Amino acid sequence: MRTRPLAVVLASGGLDSCVAAAVARQDYDLAWCHVNYGQRTLVRELTAFRTQAAFYEATLVLEADLAFLGHIGGSSLTDSHLAVPLGSDESHRLPSTYVPFRNSLLLAVAVAWGEVLTAKAVVIGANFLDGPGYPDCRPEYFEAYQRLIGLGTRPGTHLEIKTPLINLDKAGIIRLGLSLHVPLELTWSCYVNNDRACGRCSSCLLRRRGFAAVGVADPIAYVTDNTRPLEASPDRVP
Amino acid sequence: MRTRPLAVVLASGGLDSCVAAAVARQDYDLAWCHVNYGQRTLVRELTAFRTQAAFYEATLVLEADLAFLGHIGGSSLTDSHLAVPLGSDESHRLPSTYVPFRNSLLLAVAVAWGEVLTAKAVVIGANFLDGPGYPDCRPEYFEAYQRLIGLGTRPGTHLEIKTPLINLDKAGIIRLGLSLHVPLELTWSCYVNNDRACGRCSSCLLRRRGFAAVGVADPIAYVTDNTRPLEASPDRVP
Repeated sequence: MRTRPLAVVLASGGLDSCVAAAVARQDYDLAWCHVNYGQRTLVRELTAFRTQAAFYEATLVLEADLAFLGHIGGSSLTDSHLAVPLGSDESHRLPSTYVPFRNSLLLAVAVAWGEVLTAKAVVIGANFLDGPGYPDCRPEYFEAYQRLIGLGTRPGTHLEIKTPLINLDKAGIIRLGLSLHVPLELTWSCYVNNDRACGRCSSCLLRRRGFAAVGVADPIAYVTDNTRPLEASPDRVP
Repeated sequence: MRTRPLAVVLASGGLDSCVAAAVARQDYDLAWCHVNYGQRTLVRELTAFRTQAAFYEATLVLEADLAFLGHIGGSSLTDSHLAVPLGSDESHRLPSTYVPFRNSLLLAVAVAWGEVLTAKAVVIGANFLDGPGYPDCRPEYFEAYQRLIGLGTRPGTHLEIKTPLINLDKAGIIRLGLSLHVPLELTWSCYVNNDRACGRCSSCLLRRRGFAAVGVADPIAYVTDNTRPLEASPDRVP
């Protein structure tokens, strides 16, 4: 017998979604949903997802496969012919790591499952402040998706999209995670590697910059050569 | 070198989407997109899709697998533990053949592919007039999805949702298909069978009623016992 409402959390295995899950579990029982979309690091992300779900003693778990996203290409995260950019991108152009319509696919998976489970919320760790500018991480995008849920689900469905991190930067997310005792050592952010994080891709840099700003050591392992400069002088992070 | 704009057509293998494709190809080159969502008749539908795509000499074809929809259940089309209802349903309740958030998933697949292809339209054969009342077939649902595309895709993307059948009933769709010389013998509508159409499920009944109203013989094969009453006296179709 469930005494609290249920929420489906989209958990990639990354830092943001794990913190979002920790926030959501204060108010909801969680159903953990992971989506494989043909990304380079899917094995590592899936491992991170499973260890996080086990840490939080998840009983409802869905691993959905959208491998076709890897076949249609259009993103350096899924197409091995495109290089993942290293370093920070200050161009304000949409980076090649953007995956076409990805959040709409992820949310559709979570909403479909949430509808079957009669869940009350779908939780996504999206944030926009110091992210790479993906259009489907903006608050107005989620408002439009909320409207879609109201029109496109079974009558009586009440699924609210929760974006608990939407107004936080990476340092704020890490601080929130620390305050909630999130197992940050179980999270994976690197866009490139499956063993030790590269430390150089835009996602690694954003994460390292966040930990540096908080003044706490990142508990995950990096390829040593790449992280040495950052460990020596955090203020020189690009 | 493409001289006409490109449209992604969601083609299930069914009658409606094949007619929608025939309408769209008057103005667009077509990219044919089929989605497996764990439905009972997926082998038959996929065969129908492939023969239609071959008939129209498709060069861009995507077969996307969303098999997880079969795992989460919630629909008699995907869950073998739930019976597909036979006969017409006049209850005005949402029938068990409703698949949770299905059109949002189908559209997300088509939009993601269309974004990569820089297509100008996504075509779906949805219609509402004498359908089973699925919420995600209503015009206001598609309007909300159009807004989502505007907010959730790469800047510069201009993908318009086209619903050429939205205001037609089944007889009207069949008439339109006949006028466009659509190979209706290559389409599959039955929710239950993979060889000869059952003739008794709600989808078969809707199709048979449509052909009866037009006064044309349905070119596909039905299980004989079920269709005999209809063939004898079309006006007695339930």
